[in-house]
Amino acid sequence: MAGEPDPELSRVRLGIAYDGTDFHGWGRQSGLRTVQGELEAALETIFGRFGPPPKLTVAGRTDAGVHAIGQVAHLDLTARQLDKFSRASNGGNISDLAHRLNGIAGLESDVRVLTAELVSADFDARFSAVFRSYRYRIADAASVWNPVTRRMTLFVPGQLDLGRMSEASETLLGLHDWTAFCKSREESTNIRTLQRFEWKRDEDQTLVATVQADAFCHSMVRALVGAVAAVGEGKLEPADLVRIRDGKVRTSDFKVLPAKGLVLLGVGYPPESEWASRSQKTRAKRELDERL
Amino acid sequence: MAGEPDPELSRVRLGIAYDGTDFHGWGRQSGLRTVQGELEAALETIFGRFGPPPKLTVAGRTDAGVHAIGQVAHLDLTARQLDKFSRASNGGNISDLAHRLNGIAGLESDVRVLTAELVSADFDARFSAVFRSYRYRIADAASVWNPVTRRMTLFVPGQLDLGRMSEASETLLGLHDWTAFCKSREESTNIRTLQRFEWKRDEDQTLVATVQADAFCHSMVRALVGAVAAVGEGKLEPADLVRIRDGKVRTSDFKVLPAKGLVLLGVGYPPESEWASRSQKTRAKRELDERL
Repeated sequence: MAGEPDPELSRVRLGIAYDGTDFHGWGRQSGLRTVQGELEAALETIFGRFGPPPKLTVAGRTDAGVHAIGQVAHLDLTARQLDKFSRASNGGNISDLAHRLNGIAGLESDVRVLTAELVSADFDARFSAVFRSYRYRIADAASVWNPVTRRMTLFVPGQLDLGRMSEASETLLGLHDWTAFCKSREESTNIRTLQRFEWKRDEDQTLVATVQADAFCHSMVRALVGAVAAVGEGKLEPADLVRIRDGKVRTSDFKVLPAKGLVLLGVGYPPESEWASRSQKTRAKRELDERL
Repeated sequence: MAGEPDPELSRVRLGIAYDGTDFHGWGRQSGLRTVQGELEAALETIFGRFGPPPKLTVAGRTDAGVHAIGQVAHLDLTARQLDKFSRASNGGNISDLAHRLNGIAGLESDVRVLTAELVSADFDARFSAVFRSYRYRIADAASVWNPVTRRMTLFVPGQLDLGRMSEASETLLGLHDWTAFCKSREESTNIRTLQRFEWKRDEDQTLVATVQADAFCHSMVRALVGAVAAVGEGKLEPADLVRIRDGKVRTSDFKVLPAKGLVLLGVGYPPESEWASRSQKTRAKRELDERL
């Protein structure tokens, strides 16, 4: 996360998927099994002999139990590490790194590196991103139970009103201070742009939310779907959500929903020419009038 | 499983789905958690005070770890049990039984009763069935890893050849003695009609087999997909499978694949007018020349 890229290093972008059920989230924690911890251990196995063990910078620091299909992270390799890797894989390129990492994790593992590619040092998995997109799944009394998706679905009794939920979600869109939907963390502002918040029923009649923002503060997606689910139950009105949001204090009017229903779907980046400027812009503290 | 229906009893047909991961299969076993055991315990809770605890007869006795989307079972209720149930659910009909059973299992359970309906006593979940349909999922090196489906997918290294697998599967179709693909069980013949055996790659490029037969002997689906996967790897030729089948002895030329990739998709029944005759026909021992 250093500001200035080191010209001696080669930057590698990884696409990563995981079943979060048995992980204590993304971020490395001593003594606990985390996605970052597992992947960095595998990276150290491959590269540790030839230079500093590579560290990962991630787009979305998911909580314990949250899943990912389209997670993105980057790491830096020294010229020696890159050269040794290329030789060890018979002149293969860095895309073989995905295969090597998965080989260490094992075929039946719950984390999988989907892609690995060399990118310019302007790319920053965290700060170059222009959006994160999540999906949340809720099965209610109208849903068909499907064993395949059940571990990634929240089950609720009764029936939720899709029309009210869609209406409530739409009223929330835009650039706002989301403190009422954030677990406080000292380091950052809670000002974000909610770009998309839509609900549909899928082929199993499961309610599926798609939620997209430039970035999310801690627990924000699960608070948003919890608030909208309360509207679907009839416990809150759509207008209440705008009132709660603009009150900028956390309330007990709705529940933060559990991690199991949440999947990080993807992370969006601008064209390569804008990676550096986007990254600089994001690093600057977000301000309400900045209009990213 | 009595041959003659009792006119005093009402027969109920259940549609059932489950995630088999944490069950020791369908069939009741003392001290082990099984799907039948869980459901019969719930049935006893509801009906045990008003008559004999109902027992389930199932279409497909799945092994430990096998999943189901379209399992079918039946049970019989006495007039008193049916009457008490109707009163307790405020005059509701038997379809409320699904809701009651799921309420006992709990919202987050790994088994779910999808439907409950009164049927004529001619219906026999096991013996009236004309086909069972299963699906098996294999992810190879060409597949995109998806956390949502990973617990129901077998992962193999290398790449399997879909064309060869399709060819091999087709050569196996028809009425044959499947002893080479069956774990021996004393009570039954191994003569079955393989009606359908097809492979495709789904949207994640996962190989998905659909296998349908009038009935399957023990471990037959997992042996069939294992034999065809060996053809996909290039270890066997399509013609070898016919030779193995017609040899009528179990071989070590292929592996019986693990339960986790297997899902019971559905069970087919003829029109109601044929339930009784189909049931009688199936009870008679299958013979090679019977041509069901």
